[in-house]
Amino acid sequence: MIQSIILTGLILITSVIAGQPQSVKATRKWVKKNGHTIIKDFAHLLSMPNVASDTVNIRRNAKYISNLFKKRGFDMQLLETEDANPIIYGEYKTPGAKRTLCFYVHYDGQPVDLIQWTHGPFDPVLYDASMDAGGKPIPLPMKQTKIDPEWRLYARSAGDDKAPIMTILNAVDGLQSSKIGFTSNIKLFFEGEEEAGSTNLEAHLTKHKALLDDIDIWLFCDGPMHQSRQPQLVFGVRGVTGMEITVYGATRSLHSGHYGNWAPVPGQSLAHLIATMKDENGKVLIDGFYDTVVPLSEFERFELSKIPDVDRQLKKELGLAYTEGNGRSINERLLLPSLTIKGLSSGNVGKKARNVIPNTATAAIGVRLVKGNDPKDMLDKVEAHIRSQGFHIVNDEPDMATRRKYPKIAKVDRRGSGYIASRTSMEEPNAKAIIKAVRAFVGDKLILMPALGGSLPLYLFTDLLKKPAIIVPIANHDNNQHAANENLRIANLWYGIDLMGVIMTMTN
Amino acid sequence: MIQSIILTGLILITSVIAGQPQSVKATRKWVKKNGHTIIKDFAHLLSMPNVASDTVNIRRNAKYISNLFKKRGFDMQLLETEDANPIIYGEYKTPGAKRTLCFYVHYDGQPVDLIQWTHGPFDPVLYDASMDAGGKPIPLPMKQTKIDPEWRLYARSAGDDKAPIMTILNAVDGLQSSKIGFTSNIKLFFEGEEEAGSTNLEAHLTKHKALLDDIDIWLFCDGPMHQSRQPQLVFGVRGVTGMEITVYGATRSLHSGHYGNWAPVPGQSLAHLIATMKDENGKVLIDGFYDTVVPLSEFERFELSKIPDVDRQLKKELGLAYTEGNGRSINERLLLPSLTIKGLSSGNVGKKARNVIPNTATAAIGVRLVKGNDPKDMLDKVEAHIRSQGFHIVNDEPDMATRRKYPKIAKVDRRGSGYIASRTSMEEPNAKAIIKAVRAFVGDKLILMPALGGSLPLYLFTDLLKKPAIIVPIANHDNNQHAANENLRIANLWYGIDLMGVIMTMTN
Repeated sequence: MIQSIILTGLILITSVIAGQPQSVKATRKWVKKNGHTIIKDFAHLLSMPNVASDTVNIRRNAKYISNLFKKRGFDMQLLETEDANPIIYGEYKTPGAKRTLCFYVHYDGQPVDLIQWTHGPFDPVLYDASMDAGGKPIPLPMKQTKIDPEWRLYARSAGDDKAPIMTILNAVDGLQSSKIGFTSNIKLFFEGEEEAGSTNLEAHLTKHKALLDDIDIWLFCDGPMHQSRQPQLVFGVRGVTGMEITVYGATRSLHSGHYGNWAPVPGQSLAHLIATMKDENGKVLIDGFYDTVVPLSEFERFELSKIPDVDRQLKKELGLAYTEGNGRSINERLLLPSLTIKGLSSGNVGKKARNVIPNTATAAIGVRLVKGNDPKDMLDKVEAHIRSQGFHIVNDEPDMATRRKYPKIAKVDRRGSGYIASRTSMEEPNAKAIIKAVRAFVGDKLILMPALGGSLPLYLFTDLLKKPAIIVPIANHDNNQHAANENLRIANLWYGIDLMGVIMTMTN
Repeated sequence: MIQSIILTGLILITSVIAGQPQSVKATRKWVKKNGHTIIKDFAHLLSMPNVASDTVNIRRNAKYISNLFKKRGFDMQLLETEDANPIIYGEYKTPGAKRTLCFYVHYDGQPVDLIQWTHGPFDPVLYDASMDAGGKPIPLPMKQTKIDPEWRLYARSAGDDKAPIMTILNAVDGLQSSKIGFTSNIKLFFEGEEEAGSTNLEAHLTKHKALLDDIDIWLFCDGPMHQSRQPQLVFGVRGVTGMEITVYGATRSLHSGHYGNWAPVPGQSLAHLIATMKDENGKVLIDGFYDTVVPLSEFERFELSKIPDVDRQLKKELGLAYTEGNGRSINERLLLPSLTIKGLSSGNVGKKARNVIPNTATAAIGVRLVKGNDPKDMLDKVEAHIRSQGFHIVNDEPDMATRRKYPKIAKVDRRGSGYIASRTSMEEPNAKAIIKAVRAFVGDKLILMPALGGSLPLYLFTDLLKKPAIIVPIANHDNNQHAANENLRIANLWYGIDLMGVIMTMTN
């Protein structure tokens, strides 16, 4: 479910550089010959409903996908844990392999809202261009049809996250048809509950740890490519936590005439508190907020500096003349922890506004974490800050004695514990090998992104299993993931097949 | 509809000092003899539904009340203006009178919510004490029944605002039965739409100005007595105005992970703005906010200093360990203009909170005005302050060009124009005369309150008609006005009859 910033208007096209590795010749030959079948097979896969809560169809998907890989020589099994959808697990042992790669994919998709879809979410329809660009529906191709890479296949999970399954499958086919062997042991770990919050992922990983111990690096095949359409590898995600803060006035809302200028005003008090948390340039002023951030290496900083600047375009699109961070790029800013006001509420505004001094004011505060930040420690720091502003902190509604004792009271509600960020070093040996192989395929345009701004429980792989994990995006950035009319651009499918072949045959 | 701060627990009792004026002897004699009839007549008056929108019953009330005064020798008429409930207008010319007094009352009552009433709002029931104090219903008294002044009569408008009608009527009866003449010309002006916002009051006053020109002072018989139960005269009210401020982030809500630490956060920006408006002691920091306040005279300051301090009790009741103004009393604080946050809204809090950076944040700001403050001028000052904080001000949703041009944008929506405060000088000759007469009756316990914190369009009398106006409260402070189980304490009815007699016969 990794989502991207949608940025329209950028028209850079991935230029896949030749000097092509052997594998790419094989996968391209395979695609050229079987493109129409690949699209038909993909459409068939997408026609199988795959909402995580629909456990009957989820198991249909799991058996079907498992069988596809079994036919290609993989040892397949469905890993089970209590009350959970199964993990599609597979192994392909390669004699003399130096390492074991594991492809993570999720075969479940976002729930669907039928109303907004042009076609049924599980009735895949091919278009000759994106709907937004005026594309029209066309029939699935025949053997003789010339396939335009700008075609799009519309269906739930086309981008998120069944596309990687098709690319791995066809990379295997392409290599096998040209008799090119893998250089690594290949493992498959396809989750069936990612869009339902991966609530059983940790249980699965813990229960089946023995099967996963020999994995050297996880390839997290999810999420869209960079908005510039340049190929990218991503080495982490931010963690997430947060809290709600409620400040108090009188025990009840008061008439703003009879009490205004004497009774404390919770909205005013909350504004003062929030104002002290962050300066007008977006710097968080909470003591120690940036102290535990693990800095990027010089190599990572260098790679970061090469990432195309999307700020100007983003600001134009979003109607912004100002961004936090004194003009620093979004790529750089997302590598720091953030504190944002997700919600504010006190009394009413608009037509419902009344002449009262409300008795409370509440802020929902979101905190995103980077490598090194511990969720509890960060919330402790926010709490310490609230305390330093003169507030007495409570965890439940304050009672009368508490109200009469403390001039300023804040109730803090830590909403769940959240989870840590994840970041794999670009200089970790397996990561380095993959970077080298992919760069040999796509050339200098390869973007190495230290981390995404969004959050995923990637720490389960990097911090629980203690293995490196790299996100390998395939889908076009405008794939409408999580929304109606999700789609995959055919060029991205072809790119993914080549990419998977490159990774499976890397020789570093 | 003037409401009071409800303060329970204070048990000071009005001690009506003897040395009684002649009129008081007459009214007490009248009450002693006719107490049971007065209560029965009052119950009958209260049994007539009087919600302003119920125009049929409103006219029944108007005719009935008008007739009561006609019988006592008043020249009565119903003043009409288009689409409005009538004003009950009356005159009693007193030969050789030095001045003309006009009693303002409103004969309509607050709309009723049947669910919460113990009895029907228009089925008056007498209680032997207040319901809150465990009172029980008792039958209406007979001639021989000893009447306890702590009895309460429960019905809509018992306190707000039919009680003054009964007190004026019985003061007239008491004086006439003892053959004591008025010393002033007496006028009556009873409004029928006060609880519906007095929307036609200005039209009435303008249309019938000729009738009202000879009035020397208005006696505004509305609202409850001081919480200490000491008698009081009130010389003004605050005015009211306000605005809504909306600040902007991106054109749409953004994912707090993908954009958090780069995109502007409207809730943060609004907090900064609000924090600059007022310091933590409640002092408004907006340039010139206090500049136009007309200060109290030395006499008014002296009277203010004598008002019983209710702060400690109020703070205890409302659960407050802090109030704005560095410990200054509420009586003093309400004589300054106020700026309060009536509402805050951005995104969602609680269960609806999402991981987004909302695209807007809005504050509803209430401003109360005191003598000297002009609503437009005060809002201009707030706007100037917003501008001084770097905001570009718009009045409609900003368009894309505006968004791309200005780093900080605030939409200002002035909600109606509001209206000015009203204050009559305690040293105005007619006001002075009334103070002297009432003090001769109730003694040193008389509270002279420069102004109430709440707002009423009293300026229509003081600034449009340019006449002094004094609020003369009768009802007990705990009369539940505007709520269910509205009631009048019988002692307050007796006090009111005496008080009206005193005013009608004052000789200063």
